[in-house]
Amino acid sequence: MQHSHGFHFMSATKLAIVGVGKIVRDQHLPAIAGNPDFELICTASRHGTVDGVASYGTIEAMLEAVPDIDAVSLCMPPQYRYEAAYAALNAGKHVFLEKPPGATLSEVQDLVRLADSKGLSLFASWHSRYAPAVEAAKAFLASTKIDSVHVIWKEDVRHWHPNQAWIWQAGGLGVFDPGINALSIITHILPRALFLTKATLEFPENRDAPIAADLHFSDVTKTPVHAEFDWRQTGKQSWDIVAETAAGRMVLSEGGAKLSINGEEKLSQPEREYPALYARFSEIIKAGRSDVDLAPLTHVADAFLLGRHKFVDSFYD
Amino acid sequence: MQHSHGFHFMSATKLAIVGVGKIVRDQHLPAIAGNPDFELICTASRHGTVDGVASYGTIEAMLEAVPDIDAVSLCMPPQYRYEAAYAALNAGKHVFLEKPPGATLSEVQDLVRLADSKGLSLFASWHSRYAPAVEAAKAFLASTKIDSVHVIWKEDVRHWHPNQAWIWQAGGLGVFDPGINALSIITHILPRALFLTKATLEFPENRDAPIAADLHFSDVTKTPVHAEFDWRQTGKQSWDIVAETAAGRMVLSEGGAKLSINGEEKLSQPEREYPALYARFSEIIKAGRSDVDLAPLTHVADAFLLGRHKFVDSFYD
Repeated sequence: MQHSHGFHFMSATKLAIVGVGKIVRDQHLPAIAGNPDFELICTASRHGTVDGVASYGTIEAMLEAVPDIDAVSLCMPPQYRYEAAYAALNAGKHVFLEKPPGATLSEVQDLVRLADSKGLSLFASWHSRYAPAVEAAKAFLASTKIDSVHVIWKEDVRHWHPNQAWIWQAGGLGVFDPGINALSIITHILPRALFLTKATLEFPENRDAPIAADLHFSDVTKTPVHAEFDWRQTGKQSWDIVAETAAGRMVLSEGGAKLSINGEEKLSQPEREYPALYARFSEIIKAGRSDVDLAPLTHVADAFLLGRHKFVDSFYD
Repeated sequence: MQHSHGFHFMSATKLAIVGVGKIVRDQHLPAIAGNPDFELICTASRHGTVDGVASYGTIEAMLEAVPDIDAVSLCMPPQYRYEAAYAALNAGKHVFLEKPPGATLSEVQDLVRLADSKGLSLFASWHSRYAPAVEAAKAFLASTKIDSVHVIWKEDVRHWHPNQAWIWQAGGLGVFDPGINALSIITHILPRALFLTKATLEFPENRDAPIAADLHFSDVTKTPVHAEFDWRQTGKQSWDIVAETAAGRMVLSEGGAKLSINGEEKLSQPEREYPALYARFSEIIKAGRSDVDLAPLTHVADAFLLGRHKFVDSFYD
């Protein structure tokens, strides 16, 4: 229990997690444990469980067995997220959507309508927007003229997503699963809306999702933004955004954790993205509103729509 | 000149067309000629011209040479529409976008912002929504319970799009060029928003756009909607929407021109879609607003995003 506004006691939000996997253990559980606004009371998952917390095989069984759940965090693969979100909203629960918020734009738009009609909070989380140096990068870019932007998001899928079959299935996004983090940052820090002008997507012959993507964006001022996503990177991994500006070169690196301007380090902090996400979720629940920005997923859909689809060598884990 | 509100004379809207091809000659020119609200004063096109109307090679040259243009209709392939729309809006002109309104969702969202900021009317036209029996179908579906919907949009691309290279290029949409007409109808006549749950797209090995698509949609009530688009149909062509309902079988056929319920013909009229589109364009210009519904293009983007991409036999005109 925590004291709120000096007038009444507000209970912690009773939270359930659906889809207990790596991201839940690595990120959600520590963030929830560190936030007194939330109390984890149960989970639903086909395989995973959390020590000391009641677990159920399906969200439907959980919602029926535990009526006092206030909110659920949905962490299963995106292809299965709509059904669960619909069940949760329909049962009167606030909903936290892991990224990406769904397998299609239309289904997320449908969830927004449903949450609004029921007065519930829906949160489409974009964790990379809460990386430590992102706000400083946004402030810097707002203060100068941007000449060009280069996004380099290259990592080793075998290291980061070993044997995750869903990520290679249609709707699993492939290299856009990390790439959408970069898109969530640039759509937040750049001063003007982007649109895609040209794209190439490389699909392994034996997979239904791309292993690499090359994307060219522009904006109303014709500022070029070039993004390269690649999952075949061994050795040094890159999650960098480089902007050439009138005030020099800005490098936002390590996925948003570190900011340098003209080679000088301005900010470098350990990340605490998920604590910030749960703070935000609590904030929108208290404010009685939703937070759903579809821009990153819209750019991904646009890339599939506009992009040339090229087949490349088969991929095996 | 026409008299308006009894107070002042209102001139016809001075209109320019950009991209003079088959659709302009077949549909736009007769519709404009029949509408006293519009006066066609010039065109811009790389190749096509209209007899007796001043022509220019590019929209930029036209906008500079003819300052009293009020509005432009953009009829070039979608991959080139944003640049032209931007130039027109930036020069203070209302804009009529042929379908699809752009090559990406993000660029159209950007145009909406630009039109709003300049107080101009932007019209994303969906001609099939103005087919004669569409409103009657919508009213029937609102009056009953829908059990399932089947969309069959099968035509012979060699007949309807002979040697149109752009339609096969990335961003040209392929079979979704006609298919988006079906999507524009079902998103208008069905009572609840749809979202895609499963899709397969078939790409000819030598092309960058699909020749067939199989789409499964659902809605908040789990009503199944199945759409089949195919460009390899010889013989009888199909542009049919069949709904099984509590009040019997509804067939909206011939692209929306004919409505039958339980085998009984309720309505069949010659189409006048483009006259209706120009009436609507005039209406929104007078009302000082835009009309841009992105739902049909969002479903297409979702289909590319979620769908399995299959390669099939090469296609040659």
